[in-house]
Amino acid sequence: MGFPDHLRADIEGYLEGLRFSDERDTDGLEEAMRYSLLAGGKRIRPVLALATAHAVGMPTEDVLPLAGALELIHTYSLIHDDLPAMDDDSLRRGRPTCHVVYGEGIAILAGDALYAEAMRLVLTQQHGDPTRVLECVAELATASGVRGMVGGQYIDVQGLIEKGDAELRRLHELKTGRLIRAAIECPILLADDVTRSTTLADFRAFASELGVLFQIVDDILDVTGTDVALGKPQGSDERHGKVTYVSRYGLDGARAMAEESHRNARAALDRAAPDTADELIQITDFIATRSS
Amino acid sequence: MGFPDHLRADIEGYLEGLRFSDERDTDGLEEAMRYSLLAGGKRIRPVLALATAHAVGMPTEDVLPLAGALELIHTYSLIHDDLPAMDDDSLRRGRPTCHVVYGEGIAILAGDALYAEAMRLVLTQQHGDPTRVLECVAELATASGVRGMVGGQYIDVQGLIEKGDAELRRLHELKTGRLIRAAIECPILLADDVTRSTTLADFRAFASELGVLFQIVDDILDVTGTDVALGKPQGSDERHGKVTYVSRYGLDGARAMAEESHRNARAALDRAAPDTADELIQITDFIATRSS
Repeated sequence: MGFPDHLRADIEGYLEGLRFSDERDTDGLEEAMRYSLLAGGKRIRPVLALATAHAVGMPTEDVLPLAGALELIHTYSLIHDDLPAMDDDSLRRGRPTCHVVYGEGIAILAGDALYAEAMRLVLTQQHGDPTRVLECVAELATASGVRGMVGGQYIDVQGLIEKGDAELRRLHELKTGRLIRAAIECPILLADDVTRSTTLADFRAFASELGVLFQIVDDILDVTGTDVALGKPQGSDERHGKVTYVSRYGLDGARAMAEESHRNARAALDRAAPDTADELIQITDFIATRSS
Repeated sequence: MGFPDHLRADIEGYLEGLRFSDERDTDGLEEAMRYSLLAGGKRIRPVLALATAHAVGMPTEDVLPLAGALELIHTYSLIHDDLPAMDDDSLRRGRPTCHVVYGEGIAILAGDALYAEAMRLVLTQQHGDPTRVLECVAELATASGVRGMVGGQYIDVQGLIEKGDAELRRLHELKTGRLIRAAIECPILLADDVTRSTTLADFRAFASELGVLFQIVDDILDVTGTDVALGKPQGSDERHGKVTYVSRYGLDGARAMAEESHRNARAALDRAAPDTADELIQITDFIATRSS
């Protein structure tokens, strides 16, 4: 099995090379941005974007700016989610969180700046006619706005404990699922007309199922994982009083749901790209069986 | 003289009509966004966008989404700037600031969401071919990123008291000037080829000078204005230990600089749009002579 580490290496190299300004007076801001951006992690979202591009015959270089933008947006959301006024987490990916190192004010600005620079980055896409690039920007903005990531984080911090099944699913569709969907959908938006019209619906179904799978496993790992493997304290969901797939369905129930979701995701992928999805299969299996 | 209040009314109506989601579970987030968005103010940035469009013969409806996006971005920056970890201001436009009413976590998310929704909004621009709309998105993202608003706010909160003349000017070019420039530049980016090629440089010069004028007057008003007129406590720059045009050049010196900047802005405008700039002249004179 394994993870497509060559794609992660491509992303790491690209992110390492990013600079946001030539001026010295914002160096400290860039340092805080890069501290969080280059803290490692599996780079699931940009790797998904590259693997999806490959599945429809597009080379890595055609979607690298898009892939980078996805990771900038994800990093920005982590920095803001970790703030004392939100989840108040002091450890992330095994290191002190941005506000612990640089202070709250700089952490808020580093998140803000990463989001703006993500939008700038995706506009440097050379591949794709302008209409398609605009659609990608719209998809990213929607995925990170009220009807996406930020809306999901709002529902999460409100912490309404009486959430039902549908509400729990919607919370995660917004908070994590929507950006994962954008990672898969955007490369298809940039593909040729035939690919797009014949595969978009199937890739969207795959993306939706993968988002659910990702979250169920995340909830399981929060209970079964170790601090070292997770890079953050285990059990933080319970301490924050959050409703999770585990708190709602028990560990065995959640595991059964993860298995079903894994099968569904693989089936959707078979329809979307029957012969060219090796890397996407690897990522899907990794998400289902990961230990961190 | 007077201010072009009909343009402000157009903007108010447009902002009032904006909805960000049909789902009820994010209503509380929308409420916080709208609380700050609809708190009044002169709407300088969107009014500048409409007036610039008119100066080159484009109707209001062609740039309304862009104008709305500018005000969403400005409002987001105010919400984050007011946070305890930044300027820690509890009053804005005569009302308690967003975090005072809704709490810090919601205020951070309201700002984040306004920025994402601003990007979504500008993409609904019907006027302008896709390449031009992309240029507008790039301009807005640059104006609000490390090389713009957020970079400026970073330099500002660092509060380096030893700033020299060039540093002071650059701080304000980034923090307030860059978005004001975008408000004037974006409509020209959307205009026809001839208008664009013949006027862009002159409008950019006008925008740059207007940004300087705006900031000098802002610094003067912080010393001479009243709490009621300003909608926030007078003298906050001095309490925050900020270097301003007044702290650096004295009140008389700052006033002389404002007068010179006013003349320069008017001259640049004469070159950009010799016969069609009535509304822009009104706004320029208003900015030079405003009392709040």
